[in-house]
Amino acid sequence: MPSLFVIGGARSGKSRHAQMRAEASGLAPVYLATAQAFDGEMTARIARHQAERDGRWQTVEAPLDLPEAIAREAGPGRVLLVDCLTLWLSNLMLAERDISGALDALERAVAGAAGLVILVSNEVGQGIVPDNALARRFRDEAGWANQRMAACCDEAVLVCAGLAVRLK
Amino acid sequence: MPSLFVIGGARSGKSRHAQMRAEASGLAPVYLATAQAFDGEMTARIARHQAERDGRWQTVEAPLDLPEAIAREAGPGRVLLVDCLTLWLSNLMLAERDISGALDALERAVAGAAGLVILVSNEVGQGIVPDNALARRFRDEAGWANQRMAACCDEAVLVCAGLAVRLK
Amino acid sequence: MPSLFVIGGARSGKSRHAQMRAEASGLAPVYLATAQAFDGEMTARIARHQAERDGRWQTVEAPLDLPEAIAREAGPGRVLLVDCLTLWLSNLMLAERDISGALDALERAVAGAAGLVILVSNEVGQGIVPDNALARRFRDEAGWANQRMAACCDEAVLVCAGLAVRLK
Repeated sequence: MPSLFVIGGARSGKSRHAQMRAEASGLAPVYLATAQAFDGEMTARIARHQAERDGRWQTVEAPLDLPEAIAREAGPGRVLLVDCLTLWLSNLMLAERDISGALDALERAVAGAAGLVILVSNEVGQGIVPDNALARRFRDEAGWANQRMAACCDEAVLVCAGLAVRLK
Repeated sequence: MPSLFVIGGARSGKSRHAQMRAEASGLAPVYLATAQAFDGEMTARIARHQAERDGRWQTVEAPLDLPEAIAREAGPGRVLLVDCLTLWLSNLMLAERDISGALDALERAVAGAAGLVILVSNEVGQGIVPDNALARRFRDEAGWANQRMAACCDEAVLVCAGLAVRLK
Repeated sequence: MPSLFVIGGARSGKSRHAQMRAEASGLAPVYLATAQAFDGEMTARIARHQAERDGRWQTVEAPLDLPEAIAREAGPGRVLLVDCLTLWLSNLMLAERDISGALDALERAVAGAAGLVILVSNEVGQGIVPDNALARRFRDEAGWANQRMAACCDEAVLVCAGLAVRLK
C-alpha cells in the first residue's frame, strides 16, 4: 500500500536512489523495466542498470502493460521498482495507446497494490521549449503523468546530483 | 503588498498551484494572461487553462503592458495571478522592447500593489545549451528575470510534479 | 577541508550564490575559471562574471588541469571557487582526456584541500532528450560528475531563481 514517487533529471541518480530505498525496505525486490532495447545506446544503458542490481532482484519487463504487471507482481513482502514512467509513456505514444486510460489503470494498480511500489520518472520540462511538435507533446504528457502519479503516491522526492529533496 | 513567486517546468502544475493559492486567499481573483493565441497549439493551451478557472475569475489580457495592468488591476481585496512571466518576456523580445526597463517597471508595480500578487514563471535553464543563439538569449533573459522577480517577492516556491518546494 | 557543491540551471544565480558564500567566509577568495573564450558570446560572459567580482578576488585559469590547480592554490585562510565543473567537463571531452580519471583526481584534490572549496555546476538533465549523440553523452557525463562531486562535498545546494534549496 505505501508508495514512493521519485523524480529527477537524466543521470541525476534517481534510479540509484529508488533502488537504495527498495533495498532498505527489507522486502523482496522486483524491478519492473519499461525500457526497450531498440538500439546500442539503450542496450548499453539497460546493461549498466542491470549490473547495479544484485542477485536479490527479480526483473520483469513491462514496456506497455505496466498496470497489469504491477497488479500481477505486487504482494505483501515485496517491493516493486518501476523504472521508468517516462519510457513507459514514450512506448505508449509510439504504440498509439490511450494514455489517459493507461494512467487511470496505473493509478488503480498503485493504489491497490500490497507491499511497496516505487515509481521513477523524469523531469523533462525545465529546458527550452523543444523545436518539434512531437517532443512538445511528449513533454506535456510526461508533465501531466508526473503530476497525477505524484499526487497518488504517499511520498515524493526530487533527486538532483544524487541527493533527494522531499516534495511530500 | 504580499507577493508570491511560483516557478516550475512545463506542465509541472505551477499554474494550478498558483491558482489554488489565489483561491485559498479568499480575495477576488484576477487572471493576468500574457499568452497570445498565435497558433492552434497556443489557442488550445489558453482554452484549457481558462476551463480550469471558475466563474469567480476575471481575465485581463496583458501580453506586453503587464506592469501597467498590475498597477491598474491591483487593489485591497483582490489577488492578481500573472501567468506567466516567461511568455511576457518572449512577447517583449519579439516586440523588441527594452527588457531591463520593463523589469524595473514590473518590480515597482509588484512592490506598490495593494492586495496579493502571484507571479508564475518557467525554469528553462536545466536542459542542454540550446543550438540557436535566440534560444540562448531567451534562456538568459528568462533566468535573469526569474532571479530579479524572486528576489522582490515575499515568498517563492519551486513546483515539480504538482508539488511545491519552498525557496523562500 | 570543508567543501560546498552548488548546482543550478543556466542563469539561475548559482555563481552569484557561490560568490556570496565565498565572500561571507571571510577567507581570501580565489576564482578558478574553467571557461575558455572561444567566441564573442563566451568572452562577454567571462567579462560579465569578472565585473561581478571585486578587487579582493584573485583569478586563476584552469580549463583542463583543475585538480592540479586546486592542489596548488588551496590553503588555510583561502577559499577556492571553481566555476564551473560543466565547462571543465566539456573542455575534457573536447581534448579527449580520460574523464573518469580526471574525476578521481578532482575528488582527491577537493578532499585534500585546506581552506574552503566551492564547486559550481550545471543541472543539464531536466529537458527533453537531446537530438544529437554528443549532447546526450555530455549530459550523461555531467550528470555522473554531479553525483560524484555532490557526494564528496560536505554541503550541497540547488539554486533556482537565485534562491538556494539545501540538498545536504
